Amino acid sequence: MEFDCPVPMTQYSNILLAHGSGGTMMHQLIDKVFVAAFGSPELKAGHDGAVLDVEGRIAMTTDSYVVNPLFFPGGDIGKLAIYGTCNDLAMCGARPVYLTAGFIIEEGLPMETLWRIVCSMREAADETGVRIVTGDTKVVERGKADGVFINTAGVGFVPDARVIAPLQVSEGDVIILNGDIGRHGIAVMAGREGLSLETAIESDAASLAGLVNDVFDAGVNVHCLRDLTRGGLAGALVEIARSAGVEVVVNECDIPVTEPVRGACELLGLDPMHVANEGRFILFVPENDALNCLHCMRRNSLGENARIIGRVAHRQSPGSVRLNSVVGTSRIVEMIAGQQLPRIC
Amino acid sequence: MEFDCPVPMTQYSNILLAHGSGGTMMHQLIDKVFVAAFGSPELKAGHDGAVLDVEGRIAMTTDSYVVNPLFFPGGDIGKLAIYGTCNDLAMCGARPVYLTAGFIIEEGLPMETLWRIVCSMREAADETGVRIVTGDTKVVERGKADGVFINTAGVGFVPDARVIAPLQVSEGDVIILNGDIGRHGIAVMAGREGLSLETAIESDAASLAGLVNDVFDAGVNVHCLRDLTRGGLAGALVEIARSAGVEVVVNECDIPVTEPVRGACELLGLDPMHVANEGRFILFVPENDALNCLHCMRRNSLGENARIIGRVAHRQSPGSVRLNSVVGTSRIVEMIAGQQLPRIC
Repeated sequence: MEFDCPVPMTQYSNILLAHGSGGTMMHQLIDKVFVAAFGSPELKAGHDGAVLDVEGRIAMTTDSYVVNPLFFPGGDIGKLAIYGTCNDLAMCGARPVYLTAGFIIEEGLPMETLWRIVCSMREAADETGVRIVTGDTKVVERGKADGVFINTAGVGFVPDARVIAPLQVSEGDVIILNGDIGRHGIAVMAGREGLSLETAIESDAASLAGLVNDVFDAGVNVHCLRDLTRGGLAGALVEIARSAGVEVVVNECDIPVTEPVRGACELLGLDPMHVANEGRFILFVPENDALNCLHCMRRNSLGENARIIGRVAHRQSPGSVRLNSVVGTSRIVEMIAGQQLPRIC
Repeated sequence: MEFDCPVPMTQYSNILLAHGSGGTMMHQLIDKVFVAAFGSPELKAGHDGAVLDVEGRIAMTTDSYVVNPLFFPGGDIGKLAIYGTCNDLAMCGARPVYLTAGFIIEEGLPMETLWRIVCSMREAADETGVRIVTGDTKVVERGKADGVFINTAGVGFVPDARVIAPLQVSEGDVIILNGDIGRHGIAVMAGREGLSLETAIESDAASLAGLVNDVFDAGVNVHCLRDLTRGGLAGALVEIARSAGVEVVVNECDIPVTEPVRGACELLGLDPMHVANEGRFILFVPENDALNCLHCMRRNSLGENARIIGRVAHRQSPGSVRLNSVVGTSRIVEMIAGQQLPRIC
């Protein structure tokens, strides 16, 4: 989608503090930028909130986005703000439907930058089939934020009989991963640090709701879903092993990592298992459903490299994750303590 | 509510970047601070989102809070983050039920400060009858935010037949205000600038959902509601006059302003009509319902000074707001263009 840049219409080429103060300048910013880009009937109604129809149960989630830089190979903060929150809803077994958007903008942000971001959000929202129904704008003084921070909260619909949660995970469940890991974190870091890698690495940022929906439509009995954002594949596996009280075993040789990502990780001393992704997730399904699940996923470009990476073992060491390495050894996978790559989402 | 300060349990007396990076330190922060304070079963489930039961239609809203200072006479950023979003839901005619909470924390924030804020949020949530069901934590480098920014998004339930919106406003409607205006903005500004006013002014920050509910329970046929936050009473009146396409007339002598607020406004060159409030709102009701509405409101401490401040006139100048001043003149009330007081919410 292409919009003309609205800079002339807003009269200001940069965000001023006054754009956040509830007066005519804020209303102009909302009309000319946010409503113009997002254009949902609820936003146009100009009320403080949106009244919405729902079906059955809802899932609700929120994420704030503070990625630095705002634009990186394969994505930008706007795409992340839509994909990330919708992916979290999809991981609850929900179809994403409604989003809120809260902007905290640093005084001085070029209006054109803001416009590029909101257009990217609109594109991502259309692709995912969600509507941005209400929002909020705050402006803080120069130096009191870093360009723009975006919060999105989402509501999705969950069919009545569907329960997707760590506690559904059972011994014998197979773990499926939808593709290669580590690209998002490395792409953002390379963009931030100005690293010139031999091969350009693009973020894997993507909207997973459609693929997840395909899996449900195929009748797969999904037990649990988790996207591999902060903390990476290792973090997601440890979280679920702990919440479910199960032991998980994965095979390193089955976990795809592209050569450029592997090279960059070696150079930087990072473990791809801990690097963040924005379009990768794992599914826990009964063994009987694994082939049907793989077959269905591989028909979708976001799942064409889907494969089984491990399974839920006997409950000998509940809460632990064991990795069988390519060289035949076996080690326990831990969550990292603190930061590997800050501000990647 | 009083909690023991969890500083020893988290091992860290200040927030580190690593607290936002998806590893064990972030999980410890979530467990020991957010889950400990908020304690909802959905948060304890440790999933990426919450699956929730709903009744009828929902209202959805969001607000980011960037108030400076974090603590001010009569409130703090945590109380605002709960009251503000719940008040927005109440203004949609909804009963607030579920909240999300997204924190963007500056590296170095004292853990004790964060704890005081989340305890204040819990208190305010309990008072309002809402649950914080899911959240998110990001940490940015020192100097890249200002202490902490909080986003809350909320979902409330709206009875099927209830429609509260500017378009419901009709000629002859009476406008009721629940109390004196201007205290919140002045209290925050005095706190920030270190002004020592003759009489201490406390913010009017309050949860309005209970009072609004009383009005509905009394059978008042409410047409529209609006809280008087950024932009103040003037901003709210102009927004509704424009959205509804009506002319609004208010009487200055009926708009309560306390002497300390009037004095501070004169000193600072501010118009109380434009100063933000966090516990004040206006109701548009048919003239026949006005007495019932006032009677009901005055039984609640948040409405004990409720009074009629004006009415919806003939549609001669749709979108305009006229103020009959105390000295007998009449003037058009405008929204302010930009900032009067930045970062008051």
